[in-house]
Amino acid sequence: MGGLFITFEGLDGSGKSTQLQRVAASLERRGVAHIVTREPGGTPFADLLRDLFLRREAAQVDGVVELMLVFASRRQHLIEVIEPAVADGSVVLCDRFTDSTYAYQGGGRGVPPEVIAQADRLATSCRAPDRTLFFELSPEEAQLRRRGAAADRIDRESLAFYRRVHEAYERRMAAEPERFRVIDAATPIDDVARAVEATLSDLLPAETPAGVEPGRKAVGP
Amino acid sequence: MGGLFITFEGLDGSGKSTQLQRVAASLERRGVAHIVTREPGGTPFADLLRDLFLRREAAQVDGVVELMLVFASRRQHLIEVIEPAVADGSVVLCDRFTDSTYAYQGGGRGVPPEVIAQADRLATSCRAPDRTLFFELSPEEAQLRRRGAAADRIDRESLAFYRRVHEAYERRMAAEPERFRVIDAATPIDDVARAVEATLSDLLPAETPAGVEPGRKAVGP
Repeated sequence: MGGLFITFEGLDGSGKSTQLQRVAASLERRGVAHIVTREPGGTPFADLLRDLFLRREAAQVDGVVELMLVFASRRQHLIEVIEPAVADGSVVLCDRFTDSTYAYQGGGRGVPPEVIAQADRLATSCRAPDRTLFFELSPEEAQLRRRGAAADRIDRESLAFYRRVHEAYERRMAAEPERFRVIDAATPIDDVARAVEATLSDLLPAETPAGVEPGRKAVGP
Repeated sequence: MGGLFITFEGLDGSGKSTQLQRVAASLERRGVAHIVTREPGGTPFADLLRDLFLRREAAQVDGVVELMLVFASRRQHLIEVIEPAVADGSVVLCDRFTDSTYAYQGGGRGVPPEVIAQADRLATSCRAPDRTLFFELSPEEAQLRRRGAAADRIDRESLAFYRRVHEAYERRMAAEPERFRVIDAATPIDDVARAVEATLSDLLPAETPAGVEPGRKAVGP
């Protein structure tokens, strides 16, 4: 039985990583084989590449060079971690994937989407997740959650950046509505968790009350 | 006045790097602005990437991932070093460039040329040198020069590899005959140097006898 590749996307501060951990805990309780991974990173090689960016020499790195490194790292992550787990029948829960590149490098930093698509074709043959949960939160609200303070000049620049990121996410969702599910991330954390569970119920049957069908391992579709 | 971008290609052992240094020395004597650079490398960032490959974690890196890192490094080298020097009117002498990727990663390690072309378009818009000198030496002769000993099993594997590398170079030359000049690298070193000078005489006027037109700085075309 083939597994599932599910990604979690949204602005920093949208709570997606917390919700990912909740889904993982629920799969764990039910005995459903799964892995949790994230981008950037996910492999020792990818972590090395990330370290590279933090070093001084990388400060002057061109946007397309950075894009190529992001996708080189993603290919390694796919080959080494994601595809083997999916082939093995596991559910892969991945915190950020290619949509984040369109949102942050594309919308945020202005790399043209055609160039991103070119790199994506080369690196992954445009591998799409089976489903993507987008945690919808306005850029203003996400900023409040990240900072918890009144806006200063840097915050205003940051707000403009996150507005472009948010718009780029909206373009991705408009282009592939069947892959995305939008979760209202502005509600209380338990409500968000219930919305996530409902949204995934066609792929991952909901938890049954204790004692009823324990350890059910069915994984759709 | 625009500069020139000249690359030196050939099998390991073909003597191209020695000849590049001779051309540089000749330009130096004539006061022609020039720089010497090489691939892989050429920038601090590229050197970091090269170090990355030498580390253990990179041992399992996929061929296309390696290709993306090679081209990311090349783009940085072009932007940071080569194009500014050419724009400044200098002669850029570069030891290996994209032809080496087609020869070694392509012919040698079997990465399909279409995939290399895709990475080249993304990274450099297929930037070609103004001229490429290919130092022609048979794979057998190149091996003798590198090893200076009778062939063992590793050498036979290596010979098969270098034959594929050599064939890939031949395909590059057949596709772009106007860019390439083939230098017979099997002749004595001073003869090779004279052949190189003759081959570049339309772009870089030959050295005049001492006292006649010293310091002439004309750089064609």
